[in-house]
Amino acid sequence: MRVALITVGDEILSGDIENTNATWIARKLKELGSSLIKISVVPDDVEMIAEEIRSIEADYIIVTGGLGTTPDDVTREGVAKALNLEMRLNQEALECMKKYIEKYGLSEQIKKMATLPEGSKVICNRVGAAPGFIVQNIVVLPGVPKEMTSMFEEISELFRGEREITREVVTTAREMRITELLEELTRTFQDVKIGSYPKENSVKIKITGRDEKRVQEVCNILRERLKEYEMS
Amino acid sequence: MRVALITVGDEILSGDIENTNATWIARKLKELGSSLIKISVVPDDVEMIAEEIRSIEADYIIVTGGLGTTPDDVTREGVAKALNLEMRLNQEALECMKKYIEKYGLSEQIKKMATLPEGSKVICNRVGAAPGFIVQNIVVLPGVPKEMTSMFEEISELFRGEREITREVVTTAREMRITELLEELTRTFQDVKIGSYPKENSVKIKITGRDEKRVQEVCNILRERLKEYEMS
Repeated sequence: MRVALITVGDEILSGDIENTNATWIARKLKELGSSLIKISVVPDDVEMIAEEIRSIEADYIIVTGGLGTTPDDVTREGVAKALNLEMRLNQEALECMKKYIEKYGLSEQIKKMATLPEGSKVICNRVGAAPGFIVQNIVVLPGVPKEMTSMFEEISELFRGEREITREVVTTAREMRITELLEELTRTFQDVKIGSYPKENSVKIKITGRDEKRVQEVCNILRERLKEYEMS
Repeated sequence: MRVALITVGDEILSGDIENTNATWIARKLKELGSSLIKISVVPDDVEMIAEEIRSIEADYIIVTGGLGTTPDDVTREGVAKALNLEMRLNQEALECMKKYIEKYGLSEQIKKMATLPEGSKVICNRVGAAPGFIVQNIVVLPGVPKEMTSMFEEISELFRGEREITREVVTTAREMRITELLEELTRTFQDVKIGSYPKENSVKIKITGRDEKRVQEVCNILRERLKEYEMS
């Protein structure tokens, strides 16, 4: 499954917080066997959220953040705008928020959180107030990490796919010297992805593919042939 | 200045590493007085890099990562494709890499790193091998943090702008209860941005604007009026 992630929030764009939600979701999707094809961080702005959603082609788009009650929380509107849908007070969402309604009445804030793009399927929030939702291929979750992770676990089966195998080979050879070897292997093993990540005194090579035997074969060749570069 | 950041790298999309470059650049841009309007993370893929660059309207686009010598390093090609430019062996880049050329000769790897979109202005790499470059409004830097930060510091004046003032007010009032107050202030102070970030037992309100007096005025009103919500 090809999945894209949009994180909504000025706080990440100003460098005030790290995008830990993105890293968490990236790892989960990989475990489940889906590929994360893009991460975007956009401001709390209806137009920019809508534009980003419209620009992405993926099996699913996950959007996190901007589901609260304050004026900067505009993700619901952004999603509706992207899909040309009306906003409607959602009965399922009100049902999820029963305990808040009992405590505060049907306040404007509760109405705001329960007003979703028409046709949304609600994901109840068991940790906080604002419900998440799924509409077409868009999955919308809160930005508060505890709430996001709890909701994600509930719907994670959506993203179950065929798992990829990853192996790593670390070498002390300089990246510039092993380029030709990696090029040759990339040409020969077209069903295997070979990524190379230079660190200070070593290079990490990641070998990824669906077929464990093929991945292992690349690892074996690498381990054997890298020896000459490491020694020289 | 409105700046967008594109981080290139499968390693971030698979959740293997945090996008620390993005957070570092976000903070730097804010210090310099520029606004980061979007962060994207895209795979090591010429087409997707080019598409993302083409989709962004900003004063500057910073692209990091994918400048090495291995087959998955395709950022140079992605930038050239986005701008419809030819790739050319760049003399300035070769000059920067003199010490590597003396050591290894004009190897295929060195030629790859020095082959840039035509018209690129080179940024020498004082920490590693691969040069960065600026072409039109696109600033391209390596992904290795030490190399990226060193190069960014050299060109940081590009991003100098009028600085914004930010103040924070933290309240123990529930976010749902203070929404109307924030809406009222957002309407009244249109030159000031009011963001609200719920934490476990408190809400952080960030007030940002160019005019210090106006920002302070909003803070004072908030501090005064939040008292009633905190006590009740």
